[in-house]
Amino acid sequence: MSEIVIKFGGTSLATPELIINAAKKAAKTKEQYNRVVVVVSAMGSMTDELTSLAYKITSKPDQRELDMLLTVGERISMSLFSMALNSMGYPSISLTGSQSGIVTDTRHGNARIRNIEKERFLKHLDAGKIVIIAGYQGISYAKEITTLGRGGSDLTAVAIAATIGASQCDIYTDVEGVFTADPMIIKNARKIDVISDEEMMELSGSGAGVLYPRAMELARKNNIVIQIRSSFSENTGTFIKERDDMLEEVLVRAIACEENQSMIRIRAIPDRSENMQLVFRALADEDITIDMITKNVSDSGITDLSFTVGENDLDKTVNVTRGLLERVGAKEVTFKGDLAKVALVGIGMRSHSGVAALTFEELSKNDIDIEMITTSDIKISILIKSENVEKAVRVLHDVFELDKGGIKISRN
Amino acid sequence: MSEIVIKFGGTSLATPELIINAAKKAAKTKEQYNRVVVVVSAMGSMTDELTSLAYKITSKPDQRELDMLLTVGERISMSLFSMALNSMGYPSISLTGSQSGIVTDTRHGNARIRNIEKERFLKHLDAGKIVIIAGYQGISYAKEITTLGRGGSDLTAVAIAATIGASQCDIYTDVEGVFTADPMIIKNARKIDVISDEEMMELSGSGAGVLYPRAMELARKNNIVIQIRSSFSENTGTFIKERDDMLEEVLVRAIACEENQSMIRIRAIPDRSENMQLVFRALADEDITIDMITKNVSDSGITDLSFTVGENDLDKTVNVTRGLLERVGAKEVTFKGDLAKVALVGIGMRSHSGVAALTFEELSKNDIDIEMITTSDIKISILIKSENVEKAVRVLHDVFELDKGGIKISRN
Repeated sequence: MSEIVIKFGGTSLATPELIINAAKKAAKTKEQYNRVVVVVSAMGSMTDELTSLAYKITSKPDQRELDMLLTVGERISMSLFSMALNSMGYPSISLTGSQSGIVTDTRHGNARIRNIEKERFLKHLDAGKIVIIAGYQGISYAKEITTLGRGGSDLTAVAIAATIGASQCDIYTDVEGVFTADPMIIKNARKIDVISDEEMMELSGSGAGVLYPRAMELARKNNIVIQIRSSFSENTGTFIKERDDMLEEVLVRAIACEENQSMIRIRAIPDRSENMQLVFRALADEDITIDMITKNVSDSGITDLSFTVGENDLDKTVNVTRGLLERVGAKEVTFKGDLAKVALVGIGMRSHSGVAALTFEELSKNDIDIEMITTSDIKISILIKSENVEKAVRVLHDVFELDKGGIKISRN
Repeated sequence: MSEIVIKFGGTSLATPELIINAAKKAAKTKEQYNRVVVVVSAMGSMTDELTSLAYKITSKPDQRELDMLLTVGERISMSLFSMALNSMGYPSISLTGSQSGIVTDTRHGNARIRNIEKERFLKHLDAGKIVIIAGYQGISYAKEITTLGRGGSDLTAVAIAATIGASQCDIYTDVEGVFTADPMIIKNARKIDVISDEEMMELSGSGAGVLYPRAMELARKNNIVIQIRSSFSENTGTFIKERDDMLEEVLVRAIACEENQSMIRIRAIPDRSENMQLVFRALADEDITIDMITKNVSDSGITDLSFTVGENDLDKTVNVTRGLLERVGAKEVTFKGDLAKVALVGIGMRSHSGVAALTFEELSKNDIDIEMITTSDIKISILIKSENVEKAVRVLHDVFELDKGGIKISRN
């Protein structure tokens, strides 16, 4: 008994022709696996269009009704997908999140899956049908329709894979896989064959928006191998696996970048933890997401606190922090826009130092100033001017030999 | 405790602005009634658009998936409607057919309501909320989403009215009510204030497509008064009531017409009931709907059988009937297209003869040939050339004084 879950994103389902194309892939998969579940996103930009409809009604649509509205997107694509398969002679049935028994908590717009009552869809799988499940949605304890938040369809796919005991989940999208850098920027960027889940987590959080962390975490917990692959070719994609002996280790696996970043600096703030708490609590209350944070301690107990936010949040952030100046006893708030974050990710960094040194050296050689640096055990993030981002990625891609698959290292 | 159901058709909900307009009417209704249920259709032409999407996938979409697809239309409008009401400060909640407990049989595409499990929506009504229910849909015994067929949203509205014991159901649409004739054809056509349900049934079946017979029947059975009224004005519409003392009787209440009719004649067919059965069974098997039927008996036991079908079905009908010629021993099949049916409806005909005579006289005076005539106790239908339809309706509208409210008669 072999089973697999395959998931199609919105760009893979944007037109009836593309849905037929995707259904052909599902049919082919059914020739290789006994049990096939297909998880679908909404067609193309439908979720955005529905959201915009809601905001034409009111500037503050209630979340319960918004979830009711948004979940129709997947319902449309799943029924069309099932019609396509049935017409090709592959018996199939489409099921909503609720019909699939995806039970969530009651947090509308960002619900968590609590359990999956699998009896209904298992019955159809046992009957040999391809089961099409609406991604991104479930039903709460309170019998209300909920949505799972951004990247929710990936989460649905992995959760269903875990439920049916599938060891693989193929995510079909509009790219060939995960690349060593954005191929739009770096001509000789290379598709990565296998990447560790840790590396993928760091990349996804750094602007290479291929897969959402919640889906990744769930896959890791259930030993599910995810393949990111293209709907528009027959090629093998990128496999995301737990780090094991099969996985060749390299110093740097990939470089992600994220533009439209801004840096805020609170100058001469007394370095006390209650001050830090005050600042970050106030920002969190305003739903401002903070990314990089640095603090330079001086002898006097007075420090500069710097952090980055998305450009959209800059004005709000400056207002909030200036409003706190007197209370925390800081001198002033300065800020800088038009910045970009470049992140180098690789498990190899854990055992091999020198990545940071090589990065700074290469950037300095190319006259690229670094505004801020943060590091984790397998990632180095640097903040630079937006105008330098393309050059920075290119020279780092070259120096870490990513076009050749990366600098191999011996396993620790 | 006063209760009402109001229903909005697709043209009343075609844009976000129109949904807000309709929500205002619902809010105003809530000021007058304790319990208000709103039943909504899909926005504008959405059902047609979704259907066309399905046919881009396959020429034979399966009905189960088609129902799944089509029901999203009402789901979109109901959630937007509820958002609009909530934003105006009128607490409301939207419920799908399934959430409203509308349980149907399993006939996908044309399901019948079997019972309504009202507990869930009653709870919300009791809490003072305006409940928005998706029209046209339900859930079958087999826990599958079903649709109720054409005019299904009207049926939902009347069924919910019956369930909550409402004595009135307002159907908001894009016309001011039911008219004595199509106002597009007859300039001085008059809005009818009150019409009997019997008259309305005959009119709806004769091309005045305001309300579907299934909704009418259900309203009659439950003593529910239906008001057909406009979303775009504050005017009172047309009340459809059981015939009672309040209802002024006129000889002819209204004239409906239907174009694109064709007449088929099977000539010299032996006048035996098994022959008639053969013909009509064969046509039914091909899903051909027959409207008017006449048979002229001759002394010899040989007759001409004539009937009308919609123009779209003409070719198929001629093929089917010609295929039967030998078997039934008939001479030939002739046919005529470009015809129109004009129907005069009025309860008064039941007690007063002379309507037919006056009709023939008036048409003859105006050189309009009659191709076929059929009558029921409150309706006279005549088949004429399409080119004459406007003139025919105009002269009959005048002679029966419909612009003045119709020729009053004493009650029998």
